[in-house]
Amino acid sequence: MRLLDEQAIEHIALGASLLGTGGGGDPHVGKLMALNAIRKHGPVKLVSPSELPDDALIVPSAMMGAPIVIIEKIPNGQEFITAFQGLEGILNKKVYATIPIEAGGVNSMIPIAVAAQLGIPLVDADGMGRAFPELQMVTYHLDGIPASPMVIVDEKGNRVILNTITNNWAEEIARVCTVTMGASVMISLYSMTGRQVKDSGISGIMTFSELIGKAITNARKTNTDPLEDLLDITKGYKLFQGKITDVSRNISGGFNRGLCAISGLDEYTEQSMEIAFQNENLIASKDGTVVASVPDLICIIDVDTLIPVTTETLKFGRRVVVLGIPCVSKWRTPKGIETVGPRYFGYDIDYTPIEKLAAKQEG
Amino acid sequence: MRLLDEQAIEHIALGASLLGTGGGGDPHVGKLMALNAIRKHGPVKLVSPSELPDDALIVPSAMMGAPIVIIEKIPNGQEFITAFQGLEGILNKKVYATIPIEAGGVNSMIPIAVAAQLGIPLVDADGMGRAFPELQMVTYHLDGIPASPMVIVDEKGNRVILNTITNNWAEEIARVCTVTMGASVMISLYSMTGRQVKDSGISGIMTFSELIGKAITNARKTNTDPLEDLLDITKGYKLFQGKITDVSRNISGGFNRGLCAISGLDEYTEQSMEIAFQNENLIASKDGTVVASVPDLICIIDVDTLIPVTTETLKFGRRVVVLGIPCVSKWRTPKGIETVGPRYFGYDIDYTPIEKLAAKQEG
Repeated sequence: MRLLDEQAIEHIALGASLLGTGGGGDPHVGKLMALNAIRKHGPVKLVSPSELPDDALIVPSAMMGAPIVIIEKIPNGQEFITAFQGLEGILNKKVYATIPIEAGGVNSMIPIAVAAQLGIPLVDADGMGRAFPELQMVTYHLDGIPASPMVIVDEKGNRVILNTITNNWAEEIARVCTVTMGASVMISLYSMTGRQVKDSGISGIMTFSELIGKAITNARKTNTDPLEDLLDITKGYKLFQGKITDVSRNISGGFNRGLCAISGLDEYTEQSMEIAFQNENLIASKDGTVVASVPDLICIIDVDTLIPVTTETLKFGRRVVVLGIPCVSKWRTPKGIETVGPRYFGYDIDYTPIEKLAAKQEG
Repeated sequence: MRLLDEQAIEHIALGASLLGTGGGGDPHVGKLMALNAIRKHGPVKLVSPSELPDDALIVPSAMMGAPIVIIEKIPNGQEFITAFQGLEGILNKKVYATIPIEAGGVNSMIPIAVAAQLGIPLVDADGMGRAFPELQMVTYHLDGIPASPMVIVDEKGNRVILNTITNNWAEEIARVCTVTMGASVMISLYSMTGRQVKDSGISGIMTFSELIGKAITNARKTNTDPLEDLLDITKGYKLFQGKITDVSRNISGGFNRGLCAISGLDEYTEQSMEIAFQNENLIASKDGTVVASVPDLICIIDVDTLIPVTTETLKFGRRVVVLGIPCVSKWRTPKGIETVGPRYFGYDIDYTPIEKLAAKQEG
């Protein structure tokens, strides 16, 4: 157990937004939410999964929807009190701790704010080790943990509770509710025992995010090659460097879908990269060849500051570096690939681990 | 209290489908559902609102969605056991009786099946005195009774519980859930006390439906003018007679919308009528002049058998009579007109009671 202070939150917000792979919302908005909460309620206890009692009730807290909307609809804090009370009533048990569902600018921060506000611990684990756009795309799902009962609350005071026969039905019904309720809502789902978190969660994600955040922060202060540090920490690969030349976007069905084209600079002159996204970056192709794909992480960062660029802030002319980072091993199982591999997102390619693709590029 | 037998159910199904004003689903499918239930579980006790204990919990049961879908998705009977158990858990009280939300071919029958299956009484009242397409269009809403907690269940086993800040939000969220869950679902909402049913319900709707059904059945056996009987019972007006020449339809957003054109026959030769519908018939215009509008009832019946024709079975060439029937007085209040008057449905006309419009036509 350790306490998260303001400095830690700054680093986690920054690092998690790299793991958000373009999705997961604006880290600045998320950070303000978390900082406000700890200033008001005191610092948050971060506990590792191994510290959890096996029978404790652990409840994730997150937002769902096109993340850009949250800039205008910052949660009022009442949402999760309502949501957790609803779940406690159904499950007939007190919530012991909250946990993020994914790593990202907003969804790593909301559980901090919730933990501060409710005075409960925050678990140092998540269900993705990155961000993904759909609710069934969690390691909890791979291990058969049901998303239901799922609570959806909006800032107006509407509350929806889902009990679905599959986690994909939870995604489908929750998605249309989200769109109707104002395109961005707060959710709680995948209530788990401490034992289940230990078995199915991605342990240490907050600490990992903090480490990444520190490296990015230090990059602005150092004279040596700061990218090397970041690649070391993440075991990542530099895939490309260049200038964004085109971004096409389509917000529909509750998703932010699009394509980003990057024209090469420096050692990548005369080359081009195209990145397809659905909230998160899905596929990166260099001169028509896939060089990284889900579930591996494709991260776009600013060339000077190394600050992660979300798919919502991709802009013509921005100079960026593209990184590829291996996903956690749970995603590389057959059920993992079936759940979040390229074919699930409609791309007719097999998943190849980024380590192999990188070796091919080198060779 | 009286028992509903098979004969009574036949009559109620037929009569309620007239009050369904084109909506409310296929009376044959509804009837089969109710008949199967009483054959299996025994006859149903019909109680009048005055017989209810003031503090008894009364829960409506209904289907929601494009009613044509129910032909392929007949409820399996488990839905309401699940839905009512959910509500009993939330409200911490046993359900005393069920009640229809509206009069219509399916939604008058489902509460009979539910009452038989659960062994509870059925209340002789509803919340519309007819059928309407949206959830807030009930007299309960006019009296400030909340639709929440609302339970939505599908035949697959998915369950959604809504707690909304307004009844219009219940309609909006439930509508998108319905579409996503397969276009037709079972619902429970507007849980009430016996006292509230006495104050806000439309008393005697099942008995009234039965009376209408008897008149339609007898029409096939009599040699005198059978339409007179039906007009007497309903205090209705014959608005038109003719042949359907055109039906345009658009199933979208969970609604069945369209226009029906009728070319006059007999005393209406050279005249034409147009009827606009959204699940239910909304506006009837004769040669461009409105002769009836919501909330008054516009009913299309077969010219020979007087059997009601639903908006889903309107067909080119069918010979029909169009009736107009005054709605219950609760709809003629300012809040009633605001909730279900022509302007709510997007028509730029004031509501004029059918009695006045009929007098104008005569004069």
